[in-house]
Amino acid sequence: MLTLYDYLPSGNGYKVRLLLSQLGRPFELVEKDILKGETRTPEFLAINPNGRIPVLVLEDGRRLAESDAILFYLAEGTPYLPEDRFERAEVLQWLFFEQYSHEPSIAVARFWIHSLGKRTEWAARLEEKWQRGHQALAVMERHLDGRRFFVGERYGIADIALYAYTHVAEEGEFDLSGYPRIRAWLDRVADQPGHVMITQGVF
Amino acid sequence: MLTLYDYLPSGNGYKVRLLLSQLGRPFELVEKDILKGETRTPEFLAINPNGRIPVLVLEDGRRLAESDAILFYLAEGTPYLPEDRFERAEVLQWLFFEQYSHEPSIAVARFWIHSLGKRTEWAARLEEKWQRGHQALAVMERHLDGRRFFVGERYGIADIALYAYTHVAEEGEFDLSGYPRIRAWLDRVADQPGHVMITQGVF
Repeated sequence: MLTLYDYLPSGNGYKVRLLLSQLGRPFELVEKDILKGETRTPEFLAINPNGRIPVLVLEDGRRLAESDAILFYLAEGTPYLPEDRFERAEVLQWLFFEQYSHEPSIAVARFWIHSLGKRTEWAARLEEKWQRGHQALAVMERHLDGRRFFVGERYGIADIALYAYTHVAEEGEFDLSGYPRIRAWLDRVADQPGHVMITQGVF
Repeated sequence: MLTLYDYLPSGNGYKVRLLLSQLGRPFELVEKDILKGETRTPEFLAINPNGRIPVLVLEDGRRLAESDAILFYLAEGTPYLPEDRFERAEVLQWLFFEQYSHEPSIAVARFWIHSLGKRTEWAARLEEKWQRGHQALAVMERHLDGRRFFVGERYGIADIALYAYTHVAEEGEFDLSGYPRIRAWLDRVADQPGHVMITQGVF
């Protein structure tokens, strides 16, 4: 069976749990509390030298880090990743957009405010996070004009990756009311068969 | 012919130029000076709504953004990307590591110091960039223990992506003298057939 090292409130971990649910693939969940430093212990650094969850461990012991690389690996040969070469590249474009232009603002604002409860301590840096996060949301809103999903008009891992932190963006004080296409897309994603909630670790 | 919107000092653009050189694929270079705001004009935002270079335009007009997605697209079916599914996922793991844990520290420190000449203005934030950048370099140094290249003991796009900003890290005041394996790997990458320099736009 697959093993997933994960932290349930993590959107990065949630991406993998959501896809595993939709693929109907059972897995053993090993929780690591990042707030307690459990991903920076020598034991965990032997699993992922970069000290981050999620990490997927295959049946034969091989390990894979980086949430969006895990998504791509699990989705190959399934309906969640297109077969067309250019469409696969478009999926990767959105996965890199998510990790570079979206997560570092939207997930980090949520982490500081909602997970750490340190809104005041990070007030000066939050302005920048909100500004950049809204830039990313504007790019998504524009792309969704006339589209139901991010690539090829079919639900897949680009949607999963972007959904993970967008659907909890309000926990980082991002107001989504000005993004009607994003809100409609969030509803479409939540309506997909096999959908699970972010804190639903075992299903 | 392929068209590449790019800015020559950019490591992200350089990744694509280096691979195109090694693949022997000619391309038309369209330079956009990010320091002059040329990637934030309405004209350029119509090409990439996220306002970043590089952007690859195919012969049929289709466009692709995000340097590492472009690398993956161009490398499929060539010796620069493994055919094995798990090795491809390992390549992606390193590409996401580069964009999330490496580039935002090492490239940004270089940009502030070397490109903008604003070392003093950004002094407070540079400490954090140096700390995180050295964490990323330490992960690379550890991985290169007993390895010649990042994935499958074969030069490929994981090496290209990590080389781009590592080989100019000293322009961001990262001292590489404590990373002997990284320095030996930089030399191996520079020795590959078809190698070009970062500012060598046309070849």
